[in-house]
Amino acid sequence: MDNFSFQCITKYCFGKDQRKTVGSRIKSFASKVLLVYGGGSIKRNGVYDDVTKSLKEEGISFVELSGIQANPTYEKVLEGIEIAKKEQVQLILAVGGGSVIDTSKAIAMGYYEADVWSFYERGGEVSNALPVATVLTIPAAGSEVSPDTVISYKGRKLGYSSQKIRPVVSVVDPVIFFTLPKNQIAYGVCDMMSHIFERYFTQTTHTELIDSLCEATLKTIMRNAYLLIKNPQDYEAWSEVSLAGSVAHNGFLGCGRIQDWGCHDMEHELSAQDCKVPHGAGLAVLTPNWMRHVYKENPKMFYQFAVNVMGIKADRDEEKTILRGIDKLRAFFTAIGLPATLTELGLGTNVLEEMAGKCVGNGHVGNFKPLFKEDVLEIYRKSL
Amino acid sequence: MDNFSFQCITKYCFGKDQRKTVGSRIKSFASKVLLVYGGGSIKRNGVYDDVTKSLKEEGISFVELSGIQANPTYEKVLEGIEIAKKEQVQLILAVGGGSVIDTSKAIAMGYYEADVWSFYERGGEVSNALPVATVLTIPAAGSEVSPDTVISYKGRKLGYSSQKIRPVVSVVDPVIFFTLPKNQIAYGVCDMMSHIFERYFTQTTHTELIDSLCEATLKTIMRNAYLLIKNPQDYEAWSEVSLAGSVAHNGFLGCGRIQDWGCHDMEHELSAQDCKVPHGAGLAVLTPNWMRHVYKENPKMFYQFAVNVMGIKADRDEEKTILRGIDKLRAFFTAIGLPATLTELGLGTNVLEEMAGKCVGNGHVGNFKPLFKEDVLEIYRKSL
Repeated sequence: MDNFSFQCITKYCFGKDQRKTVGSRIKSFASKVLLVYGGGSIKRNGVYDDVTKSLKEEGISFVELSGIQANPTYEKVLEGIEIAKKEQVQLILAVGGGSVIDTSKAIAMGYYEADVWSFYERGGEVSNALPVATVLTIPAAGSEVSPDTVISYKGRKLGYSSQKIRPVVSVVDPVIFFTLPKNQIAYGVCDMMSHIFERYFTQTTHTELIDSLCEATLKTIMRNAYLLIKNPQDYEAWSEVSLAGSVAHNGFLGCGRIQDWGCHDMEHELSAQDCKVPHGAGLAVLTPNWMRHVYKENPKMFYQFAVNVMGIKADRDEEKTILRGIDKLRAFFTAIGLPATLTELGLGTNVLEEMAGKCVGNGHVGNFKPLFKEDVLEIYRKSL
Repeated sequence: MDNFSFQCITKYCFGKDQRKTVGSRIKSFASKVLLVYGGGSIKRNGVYDDVTKSLKEEGISFVELSGIQANPTYEKVLEGIEIAKKEQVQLILAVGGGSVIDTSKAIAMGYYEADVWSFYERGGEVSNALPVATVLTIPAAGSEVSPDTVISYKGRKLGYSSQKIRPVVSVVDPVIFFTLPKNQIAYGVCDMMSHIFERYFTQTTHTELIDSLCEATLKTIMRNAYLLIKNPQDYEAWSEVSLAGSVAHNGFLGCGRIQDWGCHDMEHELSAQDCKVPHGAGLAVLTPNWMRHVYKENPKMFYQFAVNVMGIKADRDEEKTILRGIDKLRAFFTAIGLPATLTELGLGTNVLEEMAGKCVGNGHVGNFKPLFKEDVLEIYRKSL
């Protein structure tokens, strides 16, 4: 186990009707907030009414920024910063999924920093940020508990991370998820599983406790994903999946080990294409092919995955066990309605070379096996 | 799953030589601290030197309170409050195990509150507390990440809990644990397992994710406890056990469920006796007997424990499987050198009735099966 430090300051408020408590949860931080949301689904499902009523009850005034879309853009961030400054808000309240929350984090930074995009481009530590609170509307990205934000601008999709933008309060109310369409459920499930895979598959040795926590979380997600695809109004299944989605990405499961993140880097190139591949769909296509490409670097880890997570009967033939595990993961993705090929996503041979080049830049991505351009290209090709 | 809210603000700094970084970890909180420790083992094993050197390097001055013993007393708390006030310290730095940390938390409250003991007696929320930081010297109590403190006074051992006293920084450096005697290792292992049992065994339904995280943590503790009893200088085994001890008691594993705490309440009466039973030893004696007394209230939960944690082969005879699981837990405790009877602890028939009466007061303890005086007395008798 490697040395690490870990802190997650988010107050996590979980359960039925918790959306109605958001006002009291944030009133110690702000009397005026910027309410950020997406395309209006929160107006159809009543979440907007519940949240704004709760704000009013606590005497919290609010201004709004709506229309945040998947793969959120810097233009929306700039629009939000302008409103936040003009209206002198004290907190950014994100009511949405990863895109809305990531946009809100960028606005929170931009309240103090003149050039927010430069932090996505070059890193460094922001001087300050407004507090961010969230009401989650889709369990997937884990942004409700993470210090991370991903924004698209000038043809690039870049991430930034700072403890200063980790939400101070996150409300996770599983009832909100009842109206999600099945493809969104599946994308979310794949994204949160990938957040664990990126941490779980490591060359660091002696990582027993966190390995087993990863395995437990993955199994819980898979078991309950089946239930949700059958019945998206299963409160208990949503409770398990949404809590698991937060556990997957608050950072604890990455402690004490070298993490990978190769699949996320390869997927970002798919989402950056004109056909706007949903992040979870891209991950579903790539992940099993990534596994087949890298497992020989440390078969023990993939054997452990096959047996402990995918429930493959331990076989003396290590490789057979590993490949069965990967096949079973693919079968799971297919069973919950996820795509298996780039072709299904609308991508053809013509874009692979360029995507692979952009993905690795002048170096490599991933750590379990460092992936250079030819590795990424091979994984893309196998994914066609 | 029940509704819950959870927040653990502790910055957790883990790994080799982390004890040497404590100064830089706390300097944003304080330029003068009260250093609290126990009987002097930290002077023999070099931890005192490393910690004070780190403080000096960061220009942090300190005053000291030493001599904190197991089952810490209110007298020491009062002594600490006087020093803290007189010296105008800004943070309490606990270098020790649960007793030292719990004392430090009480001092932190007493800096602002005139009558600290009243909070242990009657609850309520303290107005304020100094920040507490810790350098852990024995993994067991989990106080390094918990909002809890237990203090003894006037023949009573009482607990208090407030988010205001959860440590702001905790340093866990497994190298420090190399010199612990084997009985202390075993007591610590039993205490942290009990912290999970008290949360795991519940009548709340649909608790799948956290059940499986509890199970994973328990198995990791047991596997590595065997290694430590063989070789107390096994760095990797200490890493697993000490991290698991913090996971066991930061509160997350109790989220969304009704917790029990009957064994802890019953054990506090043993520790309050003149023979000063070590907490972990008392828990080792009582826990399997508590299990036998209560399992019929919800056999499914104990069957799950037997199969998933203790590795008992699932048998169609549910009761046989459960009892095998409990027997195997007892065998584990024995294998790591823990006692199995009150007699070994120096307690006889004469004290049982009085202890049982004190334990339950006018009500009951525990929730999995509420334990009234006759239940507690029966468990004590079976433990003789």
